[in-house]
Amino acid sequence: MPSRGSGGYKMVLVVRGELRLTPGKVAVQVAHAAVMLAREASRRRKAELDAWEAQGQKKIALLLPTLAEMEELEHRAKGMGILTVFVEDAGLTEVPPGTRTVLGLGPAKAEEVDRLTGTLPLL
Amino acid sequence: MPSRGSGGYKMVLVVRGELRLTPGKVAVQVAHAAVMLAREASRRRKAELDAWEAQGQKKIALLLPTLAEMEELEHRAKGMGILTVFVEDAGLTEVPPGTRTVLGLGPAKAEEVDRLTGTLPLL
Repeated sequence: MPSRGSGGYKMVLVVRGELRLTPGKVAVQVAHAAVMLAREASRRRKAELDAWEAQGQKKIALLLPTLAEMEELEHRAKGMGILTVFVEDAGLTEVPPGTRTVLGLGPAKAEEVDRLTGTLPLL
Repeated sequence: MPSRGSGGYKMVLVVRGELRLTPGKVAVQVAHAAVMLAREASRRRKAELDAWEAQGQKKIALLLPTLAEMEELEHRAKGMGILTVFVEDAGLTEVPPGTRTVLGLGPAKAEEVDRLTGTLPLL
């Protein structure tokens, strides 16, 4: 499955490191973002969604320390026409209600999204 | 958001503990399962999917040690008419290709899925 510069598509899920969520909480928040993006893409980016699914729905989870950095990344992604979602936690367990936990990007061309997130560490 | 005995819907993602995957890998595999279930539900269980989304798409990540236990759980869930998916990893990083990593169940009525998974530990 190509990831860079070859027409491959990927979805990127960026987790807010400063919250120090448990692994189970992180997994659920990342899954929220992925489902929200897939749903939104089925309405507005059907061609990208189909290509991404046909290629094995590649996903990658990355880390950014702060909300400010995530909002900056969201702004840049929107400027490139990439789908974005922010997951806001219901706040029943580890964080206050409405806390933004994960920023989801894509599905988008890997070469485009890598320009935004290629230097971020893996979750 | 009700979780037991009150008409609430949930999706359950059961992670295979014996693989000892990294948190990032687990998050991505759980997200695969959630997207696959949502997609399948949009074709075959639209009412359940709509109810689950309207309630905030509740998800929970649980742990089972072995593949044998996950397959037994899958069998029981299918017997109750609950949607199931197994995520098979592409095997590019931590495990051999085709390794089953996560079992996804639902969206289904919480009271039904809790009969199957209510005693499993959180991820």
